[in-house]
Amino acid sequence: MNWQYAAGSEALQLDAINRAHQLIEPFVVNTPVLQNAYLDELSGARLYFKCENLQRTGAFKFRGACHALLQLTKAQRAAGVYTVSSGNHGAALACAGDILNIKVTVAVPRSAPAVKKANIKRYRAQIIEIEPGMQAREAAVAKLTTEQPDATFIPPYNHEHIIAGQATAALELIKVVPDLAGMIAPVGGGGLLSGSAMVAHSQGLPMYAAEPELVNDAWASLQSGQIEPARSPDSICDGLLTNLGDKTFPIIRDHVDEIFCVSEQQVVAAMQLIWQHLKVIVEPSSATVLAAILSHTARFEGQPLGLIISGGNVDITRLPWQVERLEHV
Amino acid sequence: MNWQYAAGSEALQLDAINRAHQLIEPFVVNTPVLQNAYLDELSGARLYFKCENLQRTGAFKFRGACHALLQLTKAQRAAGVYTVSSGNHGAALACAGDILNIKVTVAVPRSAPAVKKANIKRYRAQIIEIEPGMQAREAAVAKLTTEQPDATFIPPYNHEHIIAGQATAALELIKVVPDLAGMIAPVGGGGLLSGSAMVAHSQGLPMYAAEPELVNDAWASLQSGQIEPARSPDSICDGLLTNLGDKTFPIIRDHVDEIFCVSEQQVVAAMQLIWQHLKVIVEPSSATVLAAILSHTARFEGQPLGLIISGGNVDITRLPWQVERLEHV
Repeated sequence: MNWQYAAGSEALQLDAINRAHQLIEPFVVNTPVLQNAYLDELSGARLYFKCENLQRTGAFKFRGACHALLQLTKAQRAAGVYTVSSGNHGAALACAGDILNIKVTVAVPRSAPAVKKANIKRYRAQIIEIEPGMQAREAAVAKLTTEQPDATFIPPYNHEHIIAGQATAALELIKVVPDLAGMIAPVGGGGLLSGSAMVAHSQGLPMYAAEPELVNDAWASLQSGQIEPARSPDSICDGLLTNLGDKTFPIIRDHVDEIFCVSEQQVVAAMQLIWQHLKVIVEPSSATVLAAILSHTARFEGQPLGLIISGGNVDITRLPWQVERLEHV
Repeated sequence: MNWQYAAGSEALQLDAINRAHQLIEPFVVNTPVLQNAYLDELSGARLYFKCENLQRTGAFKFRGACHALLQLTKAQRAAGVYTVSSGNHGAALACAGDILNIKVTVAVPRSAPAVKKANIKRYRAQIIEIEPGMQAREAAVAKLTTEQPDATFIPPYNHEHIIAGQATAALELIKVVPDLAGMIAPVGGGGLLSGSAMVAHSQGLPMYAAEPELVNDAWASLQSGQIEPARSPDSICDGLLTNLGDKTFPIIRDHVDEIFCVSEQQVVAAMQLIWQHLKVIVEPSSATVLAAILSHTARFEGQPLGLIISGGNVDITRLPWQVERLEHV
């Protein structure tokens, strides 16, 4: 069933998200909401971490991918799907396809980390290696569209079904912690943020976002009122390097109260705090939300806040480099 | 309320454990039970990880410490408690005392890692530094007993209240996964294992344990029928270096079906698998249970197994050394 975003149609949106949740519920993990006394003390707030790093394939992306596939007709399912992804979306789509018995093809930049390619292969998707960069990605999509004319392209974030699927994490969070004073999520392409923001606003809660200073295109887009491209995509937050899309931007414009930009040092320090005290592995992108709160403690003092932890796909054999950085923060 | 272990008194024991759970429930985290498709595939079994690394103070130890304090009389609470610990028990007791407003003194070997001392200090316990080694520990207990004659000594594992408290993790696990075919826990002093074993046997489930080959005193004790001392306590499993106690041994003798000994390399490999795929931080002691299952895949094929993950207190700034080891496994 399709829905279109329009300002003022909050009830319709929440309805679409609730239906998405019913559809995907048999397949997704209702991820735990963790708390930590030390991080509460440090922030002066009450922090509820919705741990999507503990989701299937290690990221919230599985929710949207699963939802998009469940929306396909029988004929569409039989014809298969394809996408371009170097990371979590590719693995999520591969896993959802594996469960639902739908053929998945993922075009992966040659430069993608081996561990991410392995994640996609693990779920029996077909991998096509392409050159890195936006042009090669678009060319790959065009080629796949020609080669598999009946197959469906499943974009990583700029799609209503994906957005509604990602929103279900926030939906589960407010069911567990009904008295939140606000929610915060990282922003890359905006699938997770736009979905979460619709849930938050449906409950009258402010929605915040966290973004690396080095890739602050979403912040800039809110300032200018139009989609701004990422300036220099070289942040350690490898999940947040994409621009907003024409589906995610209007929702974010209408429903996100503020985007906090955080430095690379703040991200690394927050990541270390989460690993050490919350005892879960988070990727740098996920640590942005704690970094944002820790750099605005006066603002959030005493508030019960929901933090969407987006994923935990880090290659732990590469840690020495990261730990070296951690020690110099 | 006191209970004494006696073979054949399973109903009484389960009753004591249920009462312990009711007492501590307002204070403990009902920790999540996690699953992972890849680890299931690798083991050929269905693995349910009861994540006590996500417990307050990062280990199951908080359950027993909290239970022991809740069993004190008003006069005993007012007089305070003390213990000797270089690790998780000290932090757990400090935290429980902080919550229940009971003064806690912890004698800590001078050689204990700074991060572990910091954990104890965080919860406002008084720290007394002592020399390392068994003799100094015993001397410290004797000195504290003289100095604080009204205060209560809370041992780390060899006590009925501690054992009943630790057992509550297994109790929560069987409530979430009622169709388990068996349970496995690490064994050090035996508090967690003896408690878990009583729960498992009350349900007719086999109870297994995992122990480092280098410190296989519990395995040797089961062989000889008496408490054997640890040979060479130099395993990376720093939580499992202690001998069994006279309270824990009989329970383990009567209710543990088999102890699997695992090599240091198997522990490190299992720890890496848990970090990378389950996305939670576990300490080496906790990884023994997965190591044991992965080295006995034929035996456990297709079985739904409960794995008690004991803790996650690792100093992540020391990781480069560990990761170096991980890479050479």
